[in-house]
Amino acid sequence: MPDTEKPADRLTGERDNRQTGKPVNRDSALPNLYVALTHYPVVDKRGDIITSAVTNLDLHDISRSAKTYGVKSYYVVTPLVDQQDLVQKIISHWTSGSGAVYNPARRSALELIKVKNTIQDVVEDITGFEGETPKIVATCARRKSTSTGYQEFRAILKVGRPHLLVFGTAWELAPSFIAQADYILEPITGPTDYNHLSVRSAAGIILDRLLGK
Amino acid sequence: MPDTEKPADRLTGERDNRQTGKPVNRDSALPNLYVALTHYPVVDKRGDIITSAVTNLDLHDISRSAKTYGVKSYYVVTPLVDQQDLVQKIISHWTSGSGAVYNPARRSALELIKVKNTIQDVVEDITGFEGETPKIVATCARRKSTSTGYQEFRAILKVGRPHLLVFGTAWELAPSFIAQADYILEPITGPTDYNHLSVRSAAGIILDRLLGK
Repeated sequence: MPDTEKPADRLTGERDNRQTGKPVNRDSALPNLYVALTHYPVVDKRGDIITSAVTNLDLHDISRSAKTYGVKSYYVVTPLVDQQDLVQKIISHWTSGSGAVYNPARRSALELIKVKNTIQDVVEDITGFEGETPKIVATCARRKSTSTGYQEFRAILKVGRPHLLVFGTAWELAPSFIAQADYILEPITGPTDYNHLSVRSAAGIILDRLLGK
Repeated sequence: MPDTEKPADRLTGERDNRQTGKPVNRDSALPNLYVALTHYPVVDKRGDIITSAVTNLDLHDISRSAKTYGVKSYYVVTPLVDQQDLVQKIISHWTSGSGAVYNPARRSALELIKVKNTIQDVVEDITGFEGETPKIVATCARRKSTSTGYQEFRAILKVGRPHLLVFGTAWELAPSFIAQADYILEPITGPTDYNHLSVRSAAGIILDRLLGK
């Protein structure tokens, strides 16, 4: 898909307060939230930093969740050129190939995807639209002393400043990346101590906790 | 995996009230909930009833979500013998093959899976453990006049009677199946009108809404 100059259209007709100069009732607006799924820097089973391979259903599932919850763009981040090409090929099938005719709902989700080399490139892309640098929000399956809860982060999002929610592949985001984030979201917990959700499930659950009705 | 005679071990030591005769504080116990993913009867794009093919990541993602939220068993339902064999082969790789050594957390999730021919077989299996027929809870991406909300169903689950939460593949569960269910859960909604989550994401989100902290 072409790397368009504007984030995905919002579904509401409400205009942004940077355009109107008026405060916006964020309760009724879509969130000023971007999502990234990164394949580097992440760690493997032993804790070594690796570049992971792209998983096809990460593109489909997370774009469909992003579309459901009004996320502005879904960035797929990998420094590997052949993997970038693969992602573009998959997206093209569903956005301009026969898949677009077969399943228009899939098309509108996959149109949210933008492919980038690095998280830094993502931040620069968002800064270009928003006129300010987004805050980076890391996700992690383990609780940190500095973790932010979901209710607290729901309130932060309602203020309307841009945030980039980052998910890792493989075992998890590199600790060095998590340590530098502006926020670390609490891990998702149920009534057991098992904390090995797939990134596809975790992304859906986190978006629901932050933006679900 | 062998079709064992008991549901997956609970993570708490708390005993069931049918065994002790004493009331159980369900707030601290795991839910009396089973999940099924069915490949028949489901409908295709045109609304025709079909048998869909098994998707590998449906096994992984939904078993990991089920394990996280304390679901007793995750039934994968298909009447096709070659598809049943495929599912057993995948499960075996992760529960007794090299995958079990490589990733024990994956093993403990996939051990929740039981393969059955029909939903009726699932109901009979659960009835055998529980001594009573589970209530059937259908999921659907469209709101019905009889839909049950998540807060209401959270409360119903706390009473402790067995429930079977059924997810469909392909486009959705057959309308005839949904119409006969004891409950139909509300569709998942975010701040947009897009309602095309993957079944993997929907399962995670629904379990979180029902059982998340």
